[in-house]
Amino acid sequence: MPCQNFDYCFNNNSDELREDSRKKIAIVGGGNWGSAIACVVGKTVKTQDDVFQPIVSMWCRDSRKPGDTTPSIADTINATHENPKYLPGRRIPSNVIATSSLLDACESAHILILVVPHQGIPQICSELRGKLREGAHAVSLTKGISSTSENDVIRMQLISEDIEKALGVECSVLMGANLAGEVADGKFCEATIGCKSLENGEELKMLFDTPNFRIRVTTDYEAVELCGALKNIVACAAGFADGLGWAYNVKSAIIRLGLLETKKFVEHFYPSSHHTYFESCGVADLITTCYGGRNRKVAEAFIKSDKPLQAVEQELLKGQSAQGPPTAQDVFEMLEIHEISRYP
Amino acid sequence: MPCQNFDYCFNNNSDELREDSRKKIAIVGGGNWGSAIACVVGKTVKTQDDVFQPIVSMWCRDSRKPGDTTPSIADTINATHENPKYLPGRRIPSNVIATSSLLDACESAHILILVVPHQGIPQICSELRGKLREGAHAVSLTKGISSTSENDVIRMQLISEDIEKALGVECSVLMGANLAGEVADGKFCEATIGCKSLENGEELKMLFDTPNFRIRVTTDYEAVELCGALKNIVACAAGFADGLGWAYNVKSAIIRLGLLETKKFVEHFYPSSHHTYFESCGVADLITTCYGGRNRKVAEAFIKSDKPLQAVEQELLKGQSAQGPPTAQDVFEMLEIHEISRYP
Repeated sequence: MPCQNFDYCFNNNSDELREDSRKKIAIVGGGNWGSAIACVVGKTVKTQDDVFQPIVSMWCRDSRKPGDTTPSIADTINATHENPKYLPGRRIPSNVIATSSLLDACESAHILILVVPHQGIPQICSELRGKLREGAHAVSLTKGISSTSENDVIRMQLISEDIEKALGVECSVLMGANLAGEVADGKFCEATIGCKSLENGEELKMLFDTPNFRIRVTTDYEAVELCGALKNIVACAAGFADGLGWAYNVKSAIIRLGLLETKKFVEHFYPSSHHTYFESCGVADLITTCYGGRNRKVAEAFIKSDKPLQAVEQELLKGQSAQGPPTAQDVFEMLEIHEISRYP
Repeated sequence: MPCQNFDYCFNNNSDELREDSRKKIAIVGGGNWGSAIACVVGKTVKTQDDVFQPIVSMWCRDSRKPGDTTPSIADTINATHENPKYLPGRRIPSNVIATSSLLDACESAHILILVVPHQGIPQICSELRGKLREGAHAVSLTKGISSTSENDVIRMQLISEDIEKALGVECSVLMGANLAGEVADGKFCEATIGCKSLENGEELKMLFDTPNFRIRVTTDYEAVELCGALKNIVACAAGFADGLGWAYNVKSAIIRLGLLETKKFVEHFYPSSHHTYFESCGVADLITTCYGGRNRKVAEAFIKSDKPLQAVEQELLKGQSAQGPPTAQDVFEMLEIHEISRYP
């Protein structure tokens, strides 16, 4: 059952809507974290209604197989204001309007919130290339690392840099100690925005900051993004330790050493970074992820079972992915290419 | 039942013992952490038998009331090699010989390991003053802060400085992510030694370091000691959050802000400190204490019950104390005296 606001949101060509000088927001991704951030942004656009348009569009991938007649995730969200597959039991505000059409969701948006798994970024960027509104900017909540090749030399690239190159828009990042369910429940947490221009950073702060979701902005975007990406590898180590029956002291040692290795990795590839490890994206996110995150959970279950990782992941995350193992693979390759050792 | 080695250990005046050039170790304190560190040191003196004497003496306070005919803790440890009151189920090596006499335990020692609650330090120092062997040095595992008055100005003082002034010996500190039960079980952990002279620091490293109890040494002793003291306050906040049913994101925010406040406190009182927050004594100890420590446990139970703090403490810790509340009081007074605000 499509939402009654659907036509208004995506297909309305009236002069009234065209002349709205307020910023339109699009969320790209309808998974666990995308749905939780929709709960935050759906509220802030209403409290900041002089700055943002009240309707937030949200693209959810239609993963139904041909012939499947069940409703798409987008239709379900619009009908029930809930994402029963990835964030059951939490109400998504009714001013968040979902769609299975990426272009419909994004082409009129001033700010794109990208919150899809790392692997989905190239396809999404390719579909959106040249289709975005002039002056739009983006913020990535995606965790991972990328690479680029110049004159046969492979070098490190951030996911936000992939997005910038592909879409020609500035891309900030938002990372922090933010388990999705708790964020959706309105429980207190903090997050860090890493931006290239403070103007966009401060606009994003207005979009995300609430009394229960406290934002701090820094221009140290490389460290912010890499903290978010690498924590998932450390969380796998924490999960392995849990699976082996080790305890608090070990886990603290893993977190401490993981933080030091993240620092070392950032310093190697971005020596001008000015370190934000004491921000939410650093030590706090690492702790949350190593205690309560999905990578820890999958790693623990993997150690305790005799099933392959993919099977454990499918069982526990119901189609979502744990980003730790592929990120570990990417980081390993990057370290090999640059002949850096001394990481476990 | 006194240990059969007792006479040998404490009262032997033979030339053979007197001429032993190896260092004699005394542990001052028979609580939970004292008993656990006895498990470590009882083993290392044997693996490092060219440096340390094989018998470790351990003072345990005799807290029996007059007329109580049950064995003292010291006698129990010597008879059973276990401290059933404070560290049940873990074997203390048989070369650790306990005594209820502080002087017997300490007067011939080259290295004193002080591991008693903060409140017990003045009395112990007063009993030991002038009675120690020349050239002895100490290491404090005690958590707390102290103060001193000079020309009517009250200023911050470390517990290790209290000990140095009272006993006239150099006093290092050992702090880290070290839940006692896990240490006694030989589960992996790390710890930090903060020393004034690297010579003593390195000797202490030989005494404590094992493949499962990894030691790093720094001369930034003020930060090491204050991290150890202040973490207990943060752990109370973490326990309150647990008691109120808050979750991972909040706890990470509390740990992050607690780390920043610890840093701010250290920088205020010891501006030349060079920061060891990425060591085990810093971020790692804070995490362990906020998840698995006794201060967290007492604070959570306090929030959930209608009993006063002392009753909860007595019930959960069976006569041991949680150092967070008195340390919070001491820190609060210090901040008031120095007119520093901006701490919660």
